[in-house]
Amino acid sequence: MSTFQPVRGMRDILAEDAQVLNYVIAKARETAGLYGFKEVITPVVEPFELLSLKSGDEIRQRMFIFDDLGGRKVSLRPEFTASIARLVTTALRNEPKPFRVFSVGSVYRYDEPQRGRYREFWQANFELMGSSNPEADAEIILLANSLLKTAGLEGYAIKLGHVGVLKGIMSQEGIDDKTQNAILQKMDKKEYEAALALVASEKCRNVIHGLIELNGTSPFDTVQKMQKQVQDYEKATASVENLAAILKLVVESECEIQAVDPAFARGLEYYTGMIFELYVPQLEIALGGGGRYDRLIEAFGGEPTPAVGMAAGLDRIALAMQVQEIQLKTPQQKRVAVISIKDEQKGEALKIAQMLRHSGIWVEFEVMGRKMTKALEDADKRRVHYAVIIGERELKESKVVVKDLAKRTQTQVEIARLAEKIKS
Amino acid sequence: MSTFQPVRGMRDILAEDAQVLNYVIAKARETAGLYGFKEVITPVVEPFELLSLKSGDEIRQRMFIFDDLGGRKVSLRPEFTASIARLVTTALRNEPKPFRVFSVGSVYRYDEPQRGRYREFWQANFELMGSSNPEADAEIILLANSLLKTAGLEGYAIKLGHVGVLKGIMSQEGIDDKTQNAILQKMDKKEYEAALALVASEKCRNVIHGLIELNGTSPFDTVQKMQKQVQDYEKATASVENLAAILKLVVESECEIQAVDPAFARGLEYYTGMIFELYVPQLEIALGGGGRYDRLIEAFGGEPTPAVGMAAGLDRIALAMQVQEIQLKTPQQKRVAVISIKDEQKGEALKIAQMLRHSGIWVEFEVMGRKMTKALEDADKRRVHYAVIIGERELKESKVVVKDLAKRTQTQVEIARLAEKIKS
Repeated sequence: MSTFQPVRGMRDILAEDAQVLNYVIAKARETAGLYGFKEVITPVVEPFELLSLKSGDEIRQRMFIFDDLGGRKVSLRPEFTASIARLVTTALRNEPKPFRVFSVGSVYRYDEPQRGRYREFWQANFELMGSSNPEADAEIILLANSLLKTAGLEGYAIKLGHVGVLKGIMSQEGIDDKTQNAILQKMDKKEYEAALALVASEKCRNVIHGLIELNGTSPFDTVQKMQKQVQDYEKATASVENLAAILKLVVESECEIQAVDPAFARGLEYYTGMIFELYVPQLEIALGGGGRYDRLIEAFGGEPTPAVGMAAGLDRIALAMQVQEIQLKTPQQKRVAVISIKDEQKGEALKIAQMLRHSGIWVEFEVMGRKMTKALEDADKRRVHYAVIIGERELKESKVVVKDLAKRTQTQVEIARLAEKIKS
Repeated sequence: MSTFQPVRGMRDILAEDAQVLNYVIAKARETAGLYGFKEVITPVVEPFELLSLKSGDEIRQRMFIFDDLGGRKVSLRPEFTASIARLVTTALRNEPKPFRVFSVGSVYRYDEPQRGRYREFWQANFELMGSSNPEADAEIILLANSLLKTAGLEGYAIKLGHVGVLKGIMSQEGIDDKTQNAILQKMDKKEYEAALALVASEKCRNVIHGLIELNGTSPFDTVQKMQKQVQDYEKATASVENLAAILKLVVESECEIQAVDPAFARGLEYYTGMIFELYVPQLEIALGGGGRYDRLIEAFGGEPTPAVGMAAGLDRIALAMQVQEIQLKTPQQKRVAVISIKDEQKGEALKIAQMLRHSGIWVEFEVMGRKMTKALEDADKRRVHYAVIIGERELKESKVVVKDLAKRTQTQVEIARLAEKIKS
């Protein structure tokens, strides 16, 4: 490994890419506020035991694990939910329910790098604790929808499902939890034959196969057909009803659900109810997803706490925005170069630079001691809007020269009115 | 180690603490813009070789080091400069000089935890590449000053020094680099006797001792006295002149330097010129610091590139703000609770919540299905400004009930005018 390259699977994010990622982070934080989520910041390094408790084999095998200098077995977080579960059982134990928690930061998985998949990537994580009602599920899906919308993405799709359907069938058929998880993981990877091979009962196999093959003409039609398909299974039936209630709330709020997938499963073991994923047509990889996990907090030793949450892949959203060539809606900042003609006026020039910065103007101060023509050439290349030129003669009249680099004009401006002039 | 606690030395940052840290991060990013710095995002995990190349024993011994699943020896970054140096020798190799790079994020050191010192902490990092002129040094100090000022801190102090003075003396006396570094590290820890014991020549010892003891009545007076003290040493004399030029520029721009410390050294080996640190009276620990490192880029295999930079300890600045009880200057957001009287109106209520969010209002939607009195009690506890109550009767007239929770009044408001009403 070269010292001069990032570690394999990691990357430097430069220039416009960094701008877009930061924009998406800001949008995630804004969306969190609009939906009543409060931000918490948890460590990147967590106890291995914590992170592996409920994360599922898939992720466990791809964690960065090591011993710290005190001999503690630790790991880089592969996601946020375990850290939030820890908080819910400790510092937030007495927080009145419901409460909503937002986190944003980098997470780590030793995956095979590919387009949109890195070993260090960024997530925004939203968890709503304390409600088992469908409106809580709806809120999370609406939030996901808002985030993609505010990022400016077009044609994105929300895929909806409910692990309670498959789990309800399998539980009633007496399939143990471990086998259930194995089956769901294979379904997640769309290895349907391998999944069905793990199901002993023929009837059960047929019902699940029916769900896999089920084709609705619309999300609502799919849900109706699911209802029929699982009618012999009490819990699965309740799950389909729950899914129908969530779907209704979401669609009534003008959030379009492109598909309900009856055989939908997700890699994380802890889901118990509704699950969803976000896509854009231009990328194969999901931009995010989430679901309900009503028994996770118990597994971490807390009070039984119904919960629903979602994680958005922020660098994937940023990638999708770049693929869709979306313009950032950030106010155009005025940028100027401040240059003194002679060395003797450097101090004065610096003072003027400070004054402009106090007024919110972005200043690149000439630090190379270059001749004026060279400095102006450079300012031009950097596409600053104005060059502010400080000369002895003008200073005596409390003035400077302002050169508009786009219009190729220049005027003398009083220092007292300089910031105002540049901003206008 | 309990699964339910963060790893020793790491911590969860909750509620107001998270708000303050995010505020400081936003201020650092804003300051970067004002000074013409462009943001880059580099990985938390870097090659061990890269991070250890020039970081100094002090830091090297406290790094989190491990092998990834591909057998690569990697480490969590203990600071940003090595990553930026890597960029300067690779992706930014052809960037026209000068250029200014900003980074912000978490860094990791296995230190003994104490107040304001954690094993995971946050830094904003600013590096100005390509200029050896004193105005570049001045810009970095002014930037540090602006950051503390914009954070609202009061009574902060900037301590200034120049490693070129001590290094110039020691080089002229033929002391090798390794011993020089050992001496500077002891000086950094204020272990002056131990430092002087490593100096063989009596004359040299006396000169350095004189610098340690030197007391000026003002920063400018200190610099004048340093000039005298090192007059037999050519490079040291040039360094004092350089320090004087920087000091003059900075003070002329109305940035107060509290002290010039002639015996000042910093833990990182790579400094070659001006160095500085930031303090507030309430904390013993520095809030940040930086300096000039003209030979670092070469050490990483790049073109000789003069450079000056600084790192701000963002969680320490946040701590200082809290100790000084500084109010955040963030606009007060309007927060409302949206509650439907009956289940049948939940869908309508959710639609209204979405409408309010589109107008930038923060909405906590009632997801617990509670009775009105209970939901209102809860809204009150959460200190939302208004409760928006959705009832069947009012909906028929396209209205809702708005309850002002501070004033204890309630009125009917047309849905079409609801957002406007709440915002006013």
